[in-house]
Amino acid sequence: MTFDNPIIKEILEKYKQIWALRHASALMDWDVQTYMPQKGISHRGAAIAQLSLLGQKFMTDPSFIALVEKADGMELNDQERGVVRVLKRDIKYYTKIPPKLLEELTVATQEGTVAWREARAKSNFSLFKPHLERIVELTRQVAEKLGYEGHPYNALLDLYEEGFTVSDADVVFSRLVPSLRRILDKQRMPSHSALEDVKYDTSSMEAMLRNVLEVMGYDFNRFRMDISPHPFTIGLGPNDVRITVRYEGYDFKRALFSAIHEGGHALYELQIDESLAMTPIFDGASMGIHESQSRFWENIVGRSKSFVEAMYPIMRRYLDFLGSYSVDDVYAYFNTVKPSLIRVDADELTYNMHIAVRYELEKLLVTGEIKVGDLPELWNRKMEEYLGVKPSNDAEGVLQDIHWSQGSIGYFPTYTLGNLVAAMVGHFAGKLMNEVSELKFDGLKAWLREKIHRYGATYDPKTLLRRSFGESYNPDYLINYLSRKYE
Amino acid sequence: MTFDNPIIKEILEKYKQIWALRHASALMDWDVQTYMPQKGISHRGAAIAQLSLLGQKFMTDPSFIALVEKADGMELNDQERGVVRVLKRDIKYYTKIPPKLLEELTVATQEGTVAWREARAKSNFSLFKPHLERIVELTRQVAEKLGYEGHPYNALLDLYEEGFTVSDADVVFSRLVPSLRRILDKQRMPSHSALEDVKYDTSSMEAMLRNVLEVMGYDFNRFRMDISPHPFTIGLGPNDVRITVRYEGYDFKRALFSAIHEGGHALYELQIDESLAMTPIFDGASMGIHESQSRFWENIVGRSKSFVEAMYPIMRRYLDFLGSYSVDDVYAYFNTVKPSLIRVDADELTYNMHIAVRYELEKLLVTGEIKVGDLPELWNRKMEEYLGVKPSNDAEGVLQDIHWSQGSIGYFPTYTLGNLVAAMVGHFAGKLMNEVSELKFDGLKAWLREKIHRYGATYDPKTLLRRSFGESYNPDYLINYLSRKYE
Repeated sequence: MTFDNPIIKEILEKYKQIWALRHASALMDWDVQTYMPQKGISHRGAAIAQLSLLGQKFMTDPSFIALVEKADGMELNDQERGVVRVLKRDIKYYTKIPPKLLEELTVATQEGTVAWREARAKSNFSLFKPHLERIVELTRQVAEKLGYEGHPYNALLDLYEEGFTVSDADVVFSRLVPSLRRILDKQRMPSHSALEDVKYDTSSMEAMLRNVLEVMGYDFNRFRMDISPHPFTIGLGPNDVRITVRYEGYDFKRALFSAIHEGGHALYELQIDESLAMTPIFDGASMGIHESQSRFWENIVGRSKSFVEAMYPIMRRYLDFLGSYSVDDVYAYFNTVKPSLIRVDADELTYNMHIAVRYELEKLLVTGEIKVGDLPELWNRKMEEYLGVKPSNDAEGVLQDIHWSQGSIGYFPTYTLGNLVAAMVGHFAGKLMNEVSELKFDGLKAWLREKIHRYGATYDPKTLLRRSFGESYNPDYLINYLSRKYE
Repeated sequence: MTFDNPIIKEILEKYKQIWALRHASALMDWDVQTYMPQKGISHRGAAIAQLSLLGQKFMTDPSFIALVEKADGMELNDQERGVVRVLKRDIKYYTKIPPKLLEELTVATQEGTVAWREARAKSNFSLFKPHLERIVELTRQVAEKLGYEGHPYNALLDLYEEGFTVSDADVVFSRLVPSLRRILDKQRMPSHSALEDVKYDTSSMEAMLRNVLEVMGYDFNRFRMDISPHPFTIGLGPNDVRITVRYEGYDFKRALFSAIHEGGHALYELQIDESLAMTPIFDGASMGIHESQSRFWENIVGRSKSFVEAMYPIMRRYLDFLGSYSVDDVYAYFNTVKPSLIRVDADELTYNMHIAVRYELEKLLVTGEIKVGDLPELWNRKMEEYLGVKPSNDAEGVLQDIHWSQGSIGYFPTYTLGNLVAAMVGHFAGKLMNEVSELKFDGLKAWLREKIHRYGATYDPKTLLRRSFGESYNPDYLINYLSRKYE
């Protein structure tokens, strides 16, 4: 039995209401981004807000908190301890941060997001500056309320990656940055491919993606793929996980890798033990671990020579223009390297440099060592230092990402953790990686289930990694992988 | 101001939670029937049940009930009175019927629906009989708990059509049945059209439906059309109303009229005053009034000569095969008349005979004057008496409809009320009906909004009809309409 303790059972029975509210909210979000008639947003927002308030009310109900505290002192199995751990994090968030502060943050980020859009469109940081100042100030208050040891940024990092600290991040980036620069200097991949400009037919492309996902073993009775402006994955339960993609009509790798990337997120959700369904631990272990699953399939598998060779005949079936390009051409196209200004367009080699820039600036912002007004110049200077490219305006510099306008300060590092853990996964998968060349994925998937997926959020990310791989966030695997591939 | 009274405002503020839960449940239902991966139902059912329980809990919260009772004694405007009226109905349902009885009914109908499917597939009533006996027995208990004046069936009719009674229904059917027989005997429409067998291409058909709906003024920023096994309409708010259709690949009028029918339901929802949004009266006045809006557009408008003539060029643009058929052929195809065994396939002339059969049997079942075991034979006898056709087995007889297995006893008469009120609408619309021949619908829509739509459930259906037309369920308009069209 997964859940034996009677107090835990009582907690989980009560939690079902919260789960149902979250399930409904997730579906409402999915619908907003896929099929909702445009004007439907007028009342959808109100419905989502009401359900969120209700969930918060149930989560902070004194009798519920008392149960969680009671369970916390008992002898529990791993799953039960996981339930208590995750609930305590949620309860802490809603009880330590005063409702008024949360509300102010909601208003500030809503207004901030609107201001950011305009600022980016006009490439004018000053339009966003007062909003970001307010958001940073409120976020610092959040960190104080949550409490932390050492650096205040630790409180924020922990929101997205439980237990991950500035000390951990400093180790990661201080190892990564010089290594990436070394590899970047030596690597000889082309910086451009003619395939980037080739147009494709959307319906052929969609058929190709479905075929690729089928070959990779996705069961469309438990999974679906739709279209949205920003690709995402959403898990609605053990048998209902959905991804979205976007068809731009040219540069087909963008659609392909977004499908494989989101597919990696989806596989994680699809392989969590069903016995954890409707509990707080039916979830990924952290943002970084979740991202590792998408990056593993996108980069380590999807951009590998053996995957490209094996998938080439399938892709050619749908994309006539591939007749003029060899497997090697496609491999090169999938792996062009070019230091550039925009994070979301970065290749796997330069990507983490973009994160390093953001990490360093966020850390200084949170302590007040730098001011919001310093950001544009510092951003540009760091970009030049790390990648040798300098934004000519704020839109392609400090204003490019939506995250800060939404109050997501402390989130960026999880992208690098995703890459880092993806490389660990690739390393420890060992010989199973050879099966990719035969388009056999069952062994790899079963191994991933056993090492990571099945536990959901039973363990915090560091514990999960140590249990499965004997160590946690070790950047050497990523460095070795990139070095082998590019040097 | 629509809502001034401070107690009403307090009620509506609290009601927003219930509204949000209903909004979410409606979206979950829509998703089940359209896009949800098949296996997702494993947990979707649990989420819907949790949200329904929560809504019920809020609705029967003593402090909420006290507010509604307090408001009930106050001087209120029409909208405010409507809010109290509708809430009192909901509260009555959940407080008068013991939770245990509701739960038994839920179980009985869930099992009954499964049994009904098998019974219908095998055309074996005895498989369904014990389930239906249980459902009828529990439904009789529901009627007793709800209370009624006169006939126990009144309690059930009132659930679907507020204030509609056996006396009303007897007047309607005793006028309708002999008139319909007279018209049936005299009418000269063909019983079959070659167009019934003509196949169509689904994507051309979909494009045609979208064009027809656009011409009829549907704004796809507030409205959408999807596919589901059973066409339906769902309103998610003033700016988000959705219909579904089904493409069988032949006999195109079935898809066309299901789009126009559901479009009629949708127009009602789209034209309720936005100031009533998120309140209990943002809803149709009753099942019968809602059905009148779908039937009006489907039958009175959609099957009229002027509509067919005006839409013919548009339809031809999408359906090449129409080149071989004249406007008159299409009009005849849309209006074939043939007494048949299956209600859902019935034409507008014979349709109400099917309902009369069900009404008479339900009325007798509820009092115990007949037993469930008597149904198959009585069904067949009535069918022969009213329509001159006799089912050769139970699948095409007493087992054809899902309604009883779901506990919907008292629902069928609202279909006839829909036809009856549709004919009233057609009559009172007067000269506005002439604009159909020019494919102008704005005047008709504005008139419908003023006469019916804008009020939502502000008034009970009889009051609404009397306010707008000076009388309530008068069958003469339907008889006159059918007589003029078919005699």
